[in-house]
Amino acid sequence: MKNRLNVEDYIRTIPDFPHQGIMFRDVTTLFNDPRGFRMAIDLLLHPYAGLQIDRVVGLEARGFILGGAIAHQLSTGFVPIRKKGKLPWRTIAQDYVLEYGEATVEIHEDAIQPGEQVLIVDDLLATGGTAEAGIKLVERLGGNILGCAFVVDLPDLGGRRRLEGLGVDVHALCSFEGD
Amino acid sequence: MKNRLNVEDYIRTIPDFPHQGIMFRDVTTLFNDPRGFRMAIDLLLHPYAGLQIDRVVGLEARGFILGGAIAHQLSTGFVPIRKKGKLPWRTIAQDYVLEYGEATVEIHEDAIQPGEQVLIVDDLLATGGTAEAGIKLVERLGGNILGCAFVVDLPDLGGRRRLEGLGVDVHALCSFEGD
Repeated sequence: MKNRLNVEDYIRTIPDFPHQGIMFRDVTTLFNDPRGFRMAIDLLLHPYAGLQIDRVVGLEARGFILGGAIAHQLSTGFVPIRKKGKLPWRTIAQDYVLEYGEATVEIHEDAIQPGEQVLIVDDLLATGGTAEAGIKLVERLGGNILGCAFVVDLPDLGGRRRLEGLGVDVHALCSFEGD
Repeated sequence: MKNRLNVEDYIRTIPDFPHQGIMFRDVTTLFNDPRGFRMAIDLLLHPYAGLQIDRVVGLEARGFILGGAIAHQLSTGFVPIRKKGKLPWRTIAQDYVLEYGEATVEIHEDAIQPGEQVLIVDDLLATGGTAEAGIKLVERLGGNILGCAFVVDLPDLGGRRRLEGLGVDVHALCSFEGD
């Protein structure tokens, strides 16, 4: 088909952000475009058509934009996973390792009920550290992970392998190699 | 009408978060509820029915959840306003005053085109400092503010008066006095 636009055509690449040598994949240009944003939401949901989804979990902060849209599209509830100290009620926490140091994410302890079917969404899969912490939080609350959906996969950073190693289905709309 | 649920029935109040004496209005319980979340999006858009909306601007971070859903519902583009240093491309910045100190928010300089009709969304209107900074950023890019829509208004903190003083239409789904 001629003149077909793909998700990656809407993504802006910014060299050397936030550090020298990093090719940053900027999804704000995708979200800014009415057709691009709607296409991304449709494609993120495509593999889960016909499946029961009880909760959509978004990872702070760009996962909130996608997660809000997906939860609305599915008429389901939205659950935020946030950096430590941001959620106001009782939480459970999960530490994970960054390139330099550690970080902690949290979820409200009543956000997911045991046995609920959960879809986790974020904009980009790199090393998979945040996503793995999110998976653990959902599973500690008794949720079943239907899958993790991302706009961008950076396969060289190993996130897909890491999440699939946990038995989690990974879905990404496009990938950039050499990152 | 009997047994009618209102938006405020879905909001959880948490005393003494993040500081002693603050009654924190937690919208995560609203977003978590499929019926509540959908009702909130419908009601946020109600005053703008039939109007042209070119861009939906969400304020970091809870405004991303609402803004993503609203942009998707309208089939329009979503634009994030973020804390300083988070947006990867060229930005314009706006400082504003907090209770103790200052903060800065940014928008990508190509996110809005002159003459576009813009709806700004966030979860809660308190003093209106962040919203005012957001309004200024959108106006500096040449956008026309159709309105600012919030789930919760805390009228005692003066945000509505402040934004209306700028000539901006303010829409909130519920309000809590004495905060």
